[in-house]
Amino acid sequence: MKKAHLKIGLMGFGNIGVGSYQVLEMNRKQILAETGLDFEIVKILEKNADRPRPVQVPREIFTQDPDDIFCDPEIDIVIELLGGIHPAADLMLSAMNHGKHVVTANKAAVAAAYDELRKAAEDNHVLFRYEASVAGGIPILSALTESLQANEWTEVLGILNGTTNYILTQMTDFNLEYADVLKTAQEKGFAEADPTADVEGIDAANKLSILISLIFGHRVPPEEIPMEGITRITKGDIAEATESGNKIKLIATARKTVDGRLEYSVKPTLIPFDHPLAGVSNEFNAVFVQGNAVGELMFYGKGAGPLPTGSAVMGDVISIGKLIAKNAAYDNKVPGGRR
Amino acid sequence: MKKAHLKIGLMGFGNIGVGSYQVLEMNRKQILAETGLDFEIVKILEKNADRPRPVQVPREIFTQDPDDIFCDPEIDIVIELLGGIHPAADLMLSAMNHGKHVVTANKAAVAAAYDELRKAAEDNHVLFRYEASVAGGIPILSALTESLQANEWTEVLGILNGTTNYILTQMTDFNLEYADVLKTAQEKGFAEADPTADVEGIDAANKLSILISLIFGHRVPPEEIPMEGITRITKGDIAEATESGNKIKLIATARKTVDGRLEYSVKPTLIPFDHPLAGVSNEFNAVFVQGNAVGELMFYGKGAGPLPTGSAVMGDVISIGKLIAKNAAYDNKVPGGRR
Repeated sequence: MKKAHLKIGLMGFGNIGVGSYQVLEMNRKQILAETGLDFEIVKILEKNADRPRPVQVPREIFTQDPDDIFCDPEIDIVIELLGGIHPAADLMLSAMNHGKHVVTANKAAVAAAYDELRKAAEDNHVLFRYEASVAGGIPILSALTESLQANEWTEVLGILNGTTNYILTQMTDFNLEYADVLKTAQEKGFAEADPTADVEGIDAANKLSILISLIFGHRVPPEEIPMEGITRITKGDIAEATESGNKIKLIATARKTVDGRLEYSVKPTLIPFDHPLAGVSNEFNAVFVQGNAVGELMFYGKGAGPLPTGSAVMGDVISIGKLIAKNAAYDNKVPGGRR
Repeated sequence: MKKAHLKIGLMGFGNIGVGSYQVLEMNRKQILAETGLDFEIVKILEKNADRPRPVQVPREIFTQDPDDIFCDPEIDIVIELLGGIHPAADLMLSAMNHGKHVVTANKAAVAAAYDELRKAAEDNHVLFRYEASVAGGIPILSALTESLQANEWTEVLGILNGTTNYILTQMTDFNLEYADVLKTAQEKGFAEADPTADVEGIDAANKLSILISLIFGHRVPPEEIPMEGITRITKGDIAEATESGNKIKLIATARKTVDGRLEYSVKPTLIPFDHPLAGVSNEFNAVFVQGNAVGELMFYGKGAGPLPTGSAVMGDVISIGKLIAKNAAYDNKVPGGRR
């Protein structure tokens, strides 16, 4: 197997950045053995190099100038983990305009600038991957666009936000009110100090917007998705749901109607106990799809957290690395490159 | 998008062959629109052309001579859906030796001849895909080898046989004995007249052998996997399991021990009610894996049946088609081929 050394520029070194770094550190030898590819993070764009982190990173690879990454001809792949729409989306576009392949976990930026990002990738003949942006570690996007591509999709139902699913599960299992669970979740670090994006459904709507683009080939900006959060759900509502054999879940859904229209929403929904989504508890996410060939399919796993998200980020990086190595083999007319 | 017309030779036109044909018919236009690839099944190796089938196939594309497929230079991809080890494995090797890419759903042949098939693909520079051979429509193999490749795996637990899961679910839900459920299942077509391969765990062991090869890079022939079927399970056993908060499932499992050894088996296993696998009922399959980055992950869906299996078969075919088209673009130096 031909060995290749691939260099990565990382933008953002918060929790997800550190998690992605750790996933590569943990599994670098195995990845090298299985793929012949040796990945190295050679530059990190990050304001705060000195923040205490659970990994040891050489001081000199930190930079505050994105051009140190974009203009480095040795760097093949740029990973964007800054979060938020600005300046993340512009930086990704810049990276692609400099000929870099881009991987991101940033659902807000992908949902907001989906068309521009896809177009920049096409125009620059680079790859753009964002598996981690929907359902964290669950490999739903590549499954839908690769192994499952022989299907026409009629419906997608997702539990796409771990914070709200944790809160609803705790309310259900321990008969608690929303405010009490939120407080505990914040203390434990399962909910942010300002939980608005999670509890109002904005985070789930970003992810649903990306799923709709992929599944139905139709662009629906997140702000056009009807949205209702979980803040007004009481333990009375949950008791009532339980009595009627249902759980309340925050469900992001899109479906094709019989007359071909697309319906979509993010809202608290009754899910019968015997539906596969009913068993998805606490911080876990799941995506349930219905295809005209495969029928019902569900993917279940951790939708957030540094290591699960890092798993998806590095999965995209390795996929890109394999394609780079393959194309290099072509360009060099290495035997075996044909087909 | 560049259009390409790709021709397929199909070997075997039983239930799964017909299902794969139907999946292509149903979704051919959509596949063409999304990928620019037009797939056509141009020859079918099948003894019985006249058997009544739910699809209309032009009489003249049937053949009884595999060389009509192997020696046709127009055919790019061969799909093997004959089932059984012989002559399926030899025919796949022959197809590859003739430079054809091969897709199969045949777990018995893949498990029995894994190394030879992989080697033949490598030697002939062709692609060999077998997503449908494990868990039918569930895209577990490509997820493990692509999106999830940044993980080291510690454990896999699978409900890999729909017939036994159907029987155990019915015994549990309706307090029935094994023999009674088996009889009904046979009448409904959910179990075969000779159910040995299913109920004794042989089918699950074939699939587990393939999973072990992929996940742990270690070859364990199915006959070396300790195996116990479900034929001796009574409704008393199930009542006892229920009382202790468990379901009995036929679980195919492999795990790495702390000292690095591999343990594996197929056997009836107690699964606690709150484990994601406990909710997998009737003919559904599921694969639960534990990775060092992604943590717990479960894939759930239909593990058998003509259309779900056809979904996986055609997914492999489309993936191969995309790579063929991409490589053709390279060879022709079409702009955009670089990277």
